[in-house]
Amino acid sequence: MPKTHDQPAYRPGTFEALRFHPATAAFRDGSDSPREYLERCLATIAEREPVVQAWVVLNEDGAREQADRSTERWRRGEPLSPIDGMPIGVKDLLQTRDMPTQMGCAAFAGNFPKRDNAAVWALRQAGAVVLGKTVTTELGGPEPSPTTNPFDPRRTPGGSSSGSGAAVGARMVPAAIATQTGGSLMRPASFNGTWGFKPSQGAINRGERQTASMTTHGVHAGSASDMWQVAIEIAARAGGDPGRPALHGPAAPPPARVPSTVAVVETEAWTRLDPLSRNAFEQVVAQVEAAGVTILRRRDDAVVERFEQALVGVSDLGSDILAWEHSWAFRDLAADRPGDFSARVKRFFFDTADRLGAAGYEEALRTRAAVTAAYALLGPRADAVLLPTSTGPAPVWAGDVPGEPPVRWPTGDPGFNFPSSLLGAPAVNVPLMSVGGLPFGLQVMGQPGTDARTVAIARWAGEHLTPVSI
Amino acid sequence: MPKTHDQPAYRPGTFEALRFHPATAAFRDGSDSPREYLERCLATIAEREPVVQAWVVLNEDGAREQADRSTERWRRGEPLSPIDGMPIGVKDLLQTRDMPTQMGCAAFAGNFPKRDNAAVWALRQAGAVVLGKTVTTELGGPEPSPTTNPFDPRRTPGGSSSGSGAAVGARMVPAAIATQTGGSLMRPASFNGTWGFKPSQGAINRGERQTASMTTHGVHAGSASDMWQVAIEIAARAGGDPGRPALHGPAAPPPARVPSTVAVVETEAWTRLDPLSRNAFEQVVAQVEAAGVTILRRRDDAVVERFEQALVGVSDLGSDILAWEHSWAFRDLAADRPGDFSARVKRFFFDTADRLGAAGYEEALRTRAAVTAAYALLGPRADAVLLPTSTGPAPVWAGDVPGEPPVRWPTGDPGFNFPSSLLGAPAVNVPLMSVGGLPFGLQVMGQPGTDARTVAIARWAGEHLTPVSI
Repeated sequence: MPKTHDQPAYRPGTFEALRFHPATAAFRDGSDSPREYLERCLATIAEREPVVQAWVVLNEDGAREQADRSTERWRRGEPLSPIDGMPIGVKDLLQTRDMPTQMGCAAFAGNFPKRDNAAVWALRQAGAVVLGKTVTTELGGPEPSPTTNPFDPRRTPGGSSSGSGAAVGARMVPAAIATQTGGSLMRPASFNGTWGFKPSQGAINRGERQTASMTTHGVHAGSASDMWQVAIEIAARAGGDPGRPALHGPAAPPPARVPSTVAVVETEAWTRLDPLSRNAFEQVVAQVEAAGVTILRRRDDAVVERFEQALVGVSDLGSDILAWEHSWAFRDLAADRPGDFSARVKRFFFDTADRLGAAGYEEALRTRAAVTAAYALLGPRADAVLLPTSTGPAPVWAGDVPGEPPVRWPTGDPGFNFPSSLLGAPAVNVPLMSVGGLPFGLQVMGQPGTDARTVAIARWAGEHLTPVSI
Repeated sequence: MPKTHDQPAYRPGTFEALRFHPATAAFRDGSDSPREYLERCLATIAEREPVVQAWVVLNEDGAREQADRSTERWRRGEPLSPIDGMPIGVKDLLQTRDMPTQMGCAAFAGNFPKRDNAAVWALRQAGAVVLGKTVTTELGGPEPSPTTNPFDPRRTPGGSSSGSGAAVGARMVPAAIATQTGGSLMRPASFNGTWGFKPSQGAINRGERQTASMTTHGVHAGSASDMWQVAIEIAARAGGDPGRPALHGPAAPPPARVPSTVAVVETEAWTRLDPLSRNAFEQVVAQVEAAGVTILRRRDDAVVERFEQALVGVSDLGSDILAWEHSWAFRDLAADRPGDFSARVKRFFFDTADRLGAAGYEEALRTRAAVTAAYALLGPRADAVLLPTSTGPAPVWAGDVPGEPPVRWPTGDPGFNFPSSLLGAPAVNVPLMSVGGLPFGLQVMGQPGTDARTVAIARWAGEHLTPVSI
C-alpha cells in the first residue's frame, strides 16, 4: 500500500477542478501562457503522482516544446483551436507516436509502434499538448491497476480508464482521453469527481481500435466546457468511426438546457446501490422535479417499465459481447505468453469467449438489439435519462481474499454503465454528489446521436442544481 | 517481363479448375490423402510460380506437417470439418502467426506479429492447411504487384487480391482467402477464371482488420462448393465482425436454385465495357431469359432505373470513402517513410483524404446511404442482380507511359465492383465466359444478408447455363 496523502474530504460544492478554457484569455494578453499552465500541471504531478500513480509515461520535454510553440501561437493571436496548449493525458490503450503503448499488459511491455491514434493525431492538429500516457487496467479489463483514488488511496480510481480519471481528479491535467466498452470511462468519472463524456457509439474515430462493437473514445475533464471542446475538436478533424457520422454539435460548448421530461431508470444495478448513495441520488431527482421537470419512473410509465425489464441481465450480456470481441485481438498472444496475462483477465476474456462460441455471441447481439429497441421507445417521451453513474463511491480495494473466489469487479460495479455501452448512447457524468467525503456522480444518458443535447442537459444539472453531500 | 509460360487459351467449358471436395472420399479409404493432395499443389506451384509469382511466403514444411496430421484424422474417420486438409492461401494483408505479414509495402518488410487473423485461426481450427501468404498490391491499393495473370503473363491478375486470384486460377491451390474494399476480390476472380465470393459486409470476422467500413474477407476457389464451404467454416468458428451477424446459411454448400426474376444492372461502368465482353454477357442474359427467368432492365423498370441513377459516380464515391478510412492506418507511417510508399498509393489514399476532410467524408457516407436505399427497393422485385464482374478480360499492364499521367487503375477498372462494396451486398463471380482466350466473369449480386441465396443462384448459372467463349 502506498503512503497515504493528506487529502481533505471531497465536496462537489467547493472542490475546484482544474479548467483550461478560463485561462486562455490570459494567454492572449501574455499574463499567462500554455508553458506556465503546463508547469503548474507538472508541479501538481510532482506532488501527487507518488501516491496516485496515474501515469505510465510522461513526455515532459516534448510537452514543454509543444507548450512553447502554443505560447507563440496564442501571443500571435493565432491559436489552432480553443484547446491549443491544453495539457492532456491519453489512455495507454491508444497508440502515440512519441510514447510507448503498453496497454497495462506485460505482453506489450516496450511496445512502441511510433504512430498516432486518429484521435491523438487530431489533438495534435488542434495544438493540444499530449503530456503522457495514463494508466489503463490490463487490456482494459477487470484486473486493477496500480493507480489509486486521489481522494483516498485505499480506494480504486475505477477502471479501465484508471489513470485518466485519477489524473483529472487530482488536478494534474484539465482533461484526459479515456475509453469505455463496459463502464471504463463513466465509473472512473464518478469515482474521481470529474466530468465524463462517453459519446454515441462511433462519434469519435477510434483509429486502430475498431475491434469491439461497444468501445468509444471519450473525455474526462474538470469542466463541461473543456470536456465538450476536446471531443468536438477531435471529431472535426478525425471524424467518426469508419462508416459512422461524427459527433454532431456546436463548435463551442452547448449552453445549459433545462429538459422538459426525464426518465429515471433504475437498471438491474438498483438493488446494489448503497443506501446513502441512493439517498443522495433521490435528493437530486427531487431537485429536478422541483425545477418543473416531469419525471417518468417505472412505477408510473409503461415504456420505462419495459425498458427496465429489458435491462435485466445487462451486465452479463455486456460482458459476454465484450469478451468475445476482445478475444480475437489477444487469443494467440495469451496462448503463447500465458504468464503475461492475469487470471482475472484470462477468465474474463477467454473463458467467456470459449463458453459463448460464435452462435452464443450472435444470440447476445440479438438480445442487445431488443434492449436497444426498448430504449428507442423512450426517445419521443423523455429528453434524457437520469441514473446514478456507479453503485456508490469508490470501493476499497485491498486484493482478493486468499481461499475465496476472486472478486469479479475489483474496479467497481459496472451495472450502471453497461446500459450506455450496449445502447451506443451518449452519457455524461456530472460530479454533483459526495458520499462520505468521496465523489459520486449523476449520469445523464441520451438517445444515440443526441450528444449535444445530452451534454446541455448535464450542464444544466451541474450549473443549476445544488450539489448534494451526504 | 518474366518468361512467358506456354498456356493454352482459357475456355470456361473445358477448363478444369482444382477442386477439393471431390477428393475427400478417397481420403477416407486411403487411396488419396491430404499430404498427397498438398504435394500435387506444391508440384504445380514449382512449375507455375516462376512466372505467375502469386506467393510472398510459402510455409512448405509447416504445411506438410499440417497435412500429415489431417491425413491421420481422415483415416481415423474424424476430420475436423469438410475442409480438413485443404491447402489454402491467405492474402498477405491478414496476420498469420507462422509467416510474416508484409502487405506488399516496403514499410512493412519483415513485419511479423506472430498472431493469426480471426479467419486464419478459424481455418486452422477447421483443419485447413495454411500453405502461404498470397501477394497483395501495396496496402491493398491500386499500385500493381509483381504477380502475373496465369493465362497471359503480360496481363494483370487484378488487384488487390492478385496472388489469391492467380494462385487459384493457376490451379496451385483449390482456394485462397481474399479481401475486397473496392473491387479487390471480384475483379481478380473475373480475370483469373475462379469462383469468387464477397460476402455481405460483416459476415466474416475480419479480426484485426476492422478499420474500413467496406472491407470484407472472402474466398477465391475452383468450385462453388469449396468456396461456400471455406466461408461457412470460418463463420461458424470466428463469427462475423464485431456487432454483426455472421454469414448465414447451410453447413453444406447450398444447391443450385433457379431465380424467378433477376435485374440486369448496367452501372456507370457499362460504357466502359468492351464490345466483345458485352456481347458475351448479353448471350448469358439471353440464356437466363430463355430458361424462363423474368429479366428487369432500366428501360422497362422504374426501380432499376432509379438504382442506375443512384450508381452514377459510384467509383469516385467508393474511392473517397476507402481513401479517408485507410489514411488513418498509414498516415504517420507515410509521413515518416515516404520512400516506402508508391506515388500512386500516396495519391490514392492521402491526397484524396486530405481533399475530403471529415465533413467531405461524412457527405460521402450520406450519399452511400442514398445508394443503399435505392438498392433496397429492388429487394422485393428481384431475387438477384446480374452484371459483368469486370469491364472485360484482364488488361495488359506494361507500366505507366513516361510523360503521361499515371494510369488510375492499372489492375483493372473497378466500376462493376464498387456497387457490391458500397452496398455491403453479397456478390459471386461465376467463371462462365471467355473473351479472346481469357477469363471474363458473370457477377451475381444479392441483397445484404442473402448470401446463401446469392450463391445458390450463381451456382445455377454456373451449372445450367452454357459457357460462352468469344
